[in-house]
Amino acid sequence: MKIVVLGGGLIGKPIAVDLAKDFDTGLIDLDISKLKELEKQNIQLIQADIGNAETLKALLKDVDFVVNAVPGFMGYETLKTIISCGKHVVDIAFSPEDVMQLDELAKEKGVIAISDMGVAPGMSNILASYLDTQLDRTDSIKIYVGGLPLKREWPYEYKAGFSPIDVIEEYTRPARIVQHGKMVTKEALSEVELMDFEEIGTLEAFNSDGLRSLIYTMDVPDMVEKTLRYPGHAELMRVFRESGFFGASAIDIKGNLVRPIDLTSKLLFEKWKLARGEEEFTVMKIEASGVKDGKSCTWSYNLLDRYDAASGVHSMARTTGYAATAAVRLVINGHYKHIGLSVPEYIGRQKNCVEFMLGELAKRKVVYKYNC
Amino acid sequence: MKIVVLGGGLIGKPIAVDLAKDFDTGLIDLDISKLKELEKQNIQLIQADIGNAETLKALLKDVDFVVNAVPGFMGYETLKTIISCGKHVVDIAFSPEDVMQLDELAKEKGVIAISDMGVAPGMSNILASYLDTQLDRTDSIKIYVGGLPLKREWPYEYKAGFSPIDVIEEYTRPARIVQHGKMVTKEALSEVELMDFEEIGTLEAFNSDGLRSLIYTMDVPDMVEKTLRYPGHAELMRVFRESGFFGASAIDIKGNLVRPIDLTSKLLFEKWKLARGEEEFTVMKIEASGVKDGKSCTWSYNLLDRYDAASGVHSMARTTGYAATAAVRLVINGHYKHIGLSVPEYIGRQKNCVEFMLGELAKRKVVYKYNC
Repeated sequence: MKIVVLGGGLIGKPIAVDLAKDFDTGLIDLDISKLKELEKQNIQLIQADIGNAETLKALLKDVDFVVNAVPGFMGYETLKTIISCGKHVVDIAFSPEDVMQLDELAKEKGVIAISDMGVAPGMSNILASYLDTQLDRTDSIKIYVGGLPLKREWPYEYKAGFSPIDVIEEYTRPARIVQHGKMVTKEALSEVELMDFEEIGTLEAFNSDGLRSLIYTMDVPDMVEKTLRYPGHAELMRVFRESGFFGASAIDIKGNLVRPIDLTSKLLFEKWKLARGEEEFTVMKIEASGVKDGKSCTWSYNLLDRYDAASGVHSMARTTGYAATAAVRLVINGHYKHIGLSVPEYIGRQKNCVEFMLGELAKRKVVYKYNC
Repeated sequence: MKIVVLGGGLIGKPIAVDLAKDFDTGLIDLDISKLKELEKQNIQLIQADIGNAETLKALLKDVDFVVNAVPGFMGYETLKTIISCGKHVVDIAFSPEDVMQLDELAKEKGVIAISDMGVAPGMSNILASYLDTQLDRTDSIKIYVGGLPLKREWPYEYKAGFSPIDVIEEYTRPARIVQHGKMVTKEALSEVELMDFEEIGTLEAFNSDGLRSLIYTMDVPDMVEKTLRYPGHAELMRVFRESGFFGASAIDIKGNLVRPIDLTSKLLFEKWKLARGEEEFTVMKIEASGVKDGKSCTWSYNLLDRYDAASGVHSMARTTGYAATAAVRLVINGHYKHIGLSVPEYIGRQKNCVEFMLGELAKRKVVYKYNC
């Protein structure tokens, strides 16, 4: 079984390391400095331009399975190339395009393609879907998720493992939620509520556009996804947004046309940079309320995962990357056989698949606790 | 007696209107739209480029007295031209240069030139100096001043009658204060304290670089000037400053070299714009502590001035402009005779001058209340 991981970023690297334990694994990136960090691992390192479809096709020739971990802006085209080559794929590029458009191509090529297969989206979809199948009637699903630094530094108390522009996108894009069976949009950063988390303390939760495919695949009358931050972050981000600092239209600054968002993300990049080895954690709660055997009930899965000092792998990479590698093994082991483009909630409909995924993650100490 | 006002801005206009009640008054500005607003007043309106020294010299030929109300960046050169023409002048341009360099020229030309003659600097200097002369020993002088909108709007709760770049300058320039007889610098926006003001409520006060000439002209061991805002403003401004949004060095934004401060002030201009007729007020407290007749005492002057709906003149223009016109009358009436460049605290050394100034301001309902 030969697997290649496309993209050697913060998440692609630990994915390759994890897969190399069981499979003949390769990692492709254009940036040789990223590859060099893995020289001592049992991984075939290939410097190549994934953005060039012909180059990519040639590299995928003898490959059985692909993990697509390229940046979002090139995610869709890369996924299309992978599927057109007839290769099974787990995709964590989180591209802005609707990957469901590739369902027909995947079916035609006999490919099992699982998209959005990280922590959220990804495990959040699987567990929301699974809780839904376990209840006789599901009235509401609430997903709360955030990745945060352990050390809280004024004023943002936030660090990102990726470009601020992607985070800010979450603060500007209207949040689609489901209310009374209908999709409605709320302002991002709105409806801030305080929530207490064991071990962590009080965090704030606000609307963000994280339901994505769940809006269309789940028949639940009320669904919401909220992002978690330390209290006060949303207010600051609202100040920036409402003052125009997240503006995506160029304005004239003394003769130069500049998009405010470009300046803002450049300045915040310095403030939000997650240092190598800086302790951070991921916290997530997936809560479903409804009826089981005639009784009202609220069931949930709760995750608290921390930076792993031994491996130097950040929690964000652990929770996303190991969800992806669990899905790779799920397919290779023959548990999940759906030909076509899958979103993760499809996996959540099969109890054996959910148990396999949770088991693989638990082996890597990413533990989802079930509460009922 | 022929007087001209240079600059028909927010403050220059009411100055011209006030002086025209008693004197043959002219107003010069390059911007004809500013002049047009005063067409029905008994004021000679002259469209001309004050920045051209030769043009200005020609216009000042038959003039007895000048009020310099041009923007700060052209304030010093304009003042120099006025003095070199041998004209008495009250200056409210608040130029960044040290106007004391013009003292010799003013003496040589026999000119009475009073600079920084607004509300703060201006009346703050006069009253600080006056309180100092009244005490046997002055231990400390504290000046608190702010101009604020009546309506508090999220998130800044602040409006400016001038460019945000000039306000932001107050938030970045280190604040020079006097402690134990020595000048020390504090970070701008630092040492925030809450203070209660009658009629207004609670405001915050923070260090700003407002003592200016008082540092050198007053022999008081402890002096501080603090700016007043609604609580929370300083914290927000610190976030912007510490994140680099007030940076004055150009940075590369996708190939364009842009100074963050230029983008920030462009965006904040929209948020901070004081609308015509929008109610605002000026609050100021000048407090001196020391010893009189062997007893410890704290004396203060307190100002609360509001937008005047009848005339449509903003409080900021009233308190600054009428301080300037009071100084014009002070000189014309022969109360203040110092040849050379004066800072306002020189006026504060003469009780009759202080009483005259306070009387002129009171006639215009700008009332400084004395507390002891």
